[in-house]
Amino acid sequence: MKLLDIYSSFKQDIAFIERALEQTVQSDHPFLTETSIHLLKAGGKRIRPVFVLLSGQFGEYDLERLSKVAVALELIHMATLVHDDVIDDADTRRGELTVKSKWDNRIAMYTGDYIFAKALTVISQLGEAEIHRSLSKAIVEMCIGEIEQIRYFFRTDQTVRDYLLRIRRKTALLIAISCKLGAMAAGASESVVNGLYSYGYNVGMAFQIRDDILDLTGNERQLGKPPGSDVKQGNITLPVILAIRESGLKQNILREIERIRQSEGQADAGALLEMVRQSGGIRQSDQLAAKYIRKAVGAIAGLSDGKAKKSLVEIAHFVGSRSY
Amino acid sequence: MKLLDIYSSFKQDIAFIERALEQTVQSDHPFLTETSIHLLKAGGKRIRPVFVLLSGQFGEYDLERLSKVAVALELIHMATLVHDDVIDDADTRRGELTVKSKWDNRIAMYTGDYIFAKALTVISQLGEAEIHRSLSKAIVEMCIGEIEQIRYFFRTDQTVRDYLLRIRRKTALLIAISCKLGAMAAGASESVVNGLYSYGYNVGMAFQIRDDILDLTGNERQLGKPPGSDVKQGNITLPVILAIRESGLKQNILREIERIRQSEGQADAGALLEMVRQSGGIRQSDQLAAKYIRKAVGAIAGLSDGKAKKSLVEIAHFVGSRSY
Repeated sequence: MKLLDIYSSFKQDIAFIERALEQTVQSDHPFLTETSIHLLKAGGKRIRPVFVLLSGQFGEYDLERLSKVAVALELIHMATLVHDDVIDDADTRRGELTVKSKWDNRIAMYTGDYIFAKALTVISQLGEAEIHRSLSKAIVEMCIGEIEQIRYFFRTDQTVRDYLLRIRRKTALLIAISCKLGAMAAGASESVVNGLYSYGYNVGMAFQIRDDILDLTGNERQLGKPPGSDVKQGNITLPVILAIRESGLKQNILREIERIRQSEGQADAGALLEMVRQSGGIRQSDQLAAKYIRKAVGAIAGLSDGKAKKSLVEIAHFVGSRSY
Repeated sequence: MKLLDIYSSFKQDIAFIERALEQTVQSDHPFLTETSIHLLKAGGKRIRPVFVLLSGQFGEYDLERLSKVAVALELIHMATLVHDDVIDDADTRRGELTVKSKWDNRIAMYTGDYIFAKALTVISQLGEAEIHRSLSKAIVEMCIGEIEQIRYFFRTDQTVRDYLLRIRRKTALLIAISCKLGAMAAGASESVVNGLYSYGYNVGMAFQIRDDILDLTGNERQLGKPPGSDVKQGNITLPVILAIRESGLKQNILREIERIRQSEGQADAGALLEMVRQSGGIRQSDQLAAKYIRKAVGAIAGLSDGKAKKSLVEIAHFVGSRSY
């Protein structure tokens, strides 16, 4: 089951946002239109727009206003992906050539800057100072997260806490902000806004943990990239951190990671993946993701019952158990 | 005579902004504090803050508010410099190691992103939607300018118009926005805001033309970098474009540029500099800079006479004739 199938009722609104995304990156400059449209066409789950729309249902649902929030947040997400691809030296994403691969690192850096700036022009149309305040704070945290990720590359002595702090900044904050700004743009009350922020934060944590599990357990067809891509880049994720704790596996895993590090990501990750899959790291990570989902659902328990809330609960459970 | 000496009356306010700059980039994260402070300490003319303060005098001068605008714009300028250094593969700037050289390109990219995001948090404290709208539009243009600069590297068939459009985006817009937002933050009337925007735009154009002249005519001690750095990076500036038009020089200049291009910027630029200096390109560029200065002064002719206006006229003439 695909994410969008669950929310068939949103199909039209998501199509509206898709068009707005395209229109936003068009016409300033032919070359930047080309790089940006290339990124848009590469697809993505558009989960941030979905969260904006769902959260907007707890206030006055105005698609025009909500689409500005959704477009801005999806563009910010895309901008971080372009910059990530420079860092990760990634040649493909979702089966498509990356900007840095199709053009070069410099073009990718400025395409990212441009898309980010476009996001700001879109959100500024709402004319809400508080939205700028919340958003800019979240972006600062996201940048810190990016730097932290680099600093922790191949660090096998990192703790679960280090990991959680990193994915908080890398993923959870932007999903939390999607929910928060969606609710704010719809004029929802402060307690509703806060509940949705907490919901988004916890769903975001679970989402990233599941993503990191899938990178270790999925296959290339499911992932759109070879499994083990994270560790090849030096990104040591939760299941690996937990597997290292198992005395029977520790030395072998550390040796494999060191081998991958020395090969600059060229070495085969098969042996490492096998060990992590056999460890308790996957199951424990799954349990932690499930815990975040419970927290997410709890955070909106006080919101008024109805279709919007039911959808949020459903999507949370979907995120917590997704296998692609 | 140094820029800051001209505005000794602003010394205290500039010191206030300097402290605010430091405070802004401190404490989020030790590593980012280090990279950012490194950039701040490398100095700079702080001309954007000076323009913010001067423009703020045409309304209700509130240092606290104006310093937020000044800090945000100086940080945005710094962020673009960090990203530029990645592009230019520059090892030093103003005699100091660049972030990409002291650390690496990835760190430089995210340090730029971080500093930019911090700028947004500062400006968002003003709570003025119109400031966000103006600023985000200018930043989009600046990003387009960066991409254009790359696309025009070593292009010897470019026109004066191509060049002017590029420096408009690269330099003039941010100075124009400094004047505009300084006036807006001080609550100046729309006509005053527009006049100051036009002033800043024209001063910015002259500033960049002078900068490009100095890169060709200055020495390493004055510039803090070897002369001819622009062309070595592939940046073909106005005096060179004009010199290429001279039939007696054209073939020799094109050959030198091609030699520099093929050497990937390693070849000596001495012969090229000599030819451009002998051409009419320097003088014609100087004349164009002077024309922009006249336009700048004309743009504020209608503003109320007084110390602020006198200072703006003085600084414009200084920019138009600066030799360091």
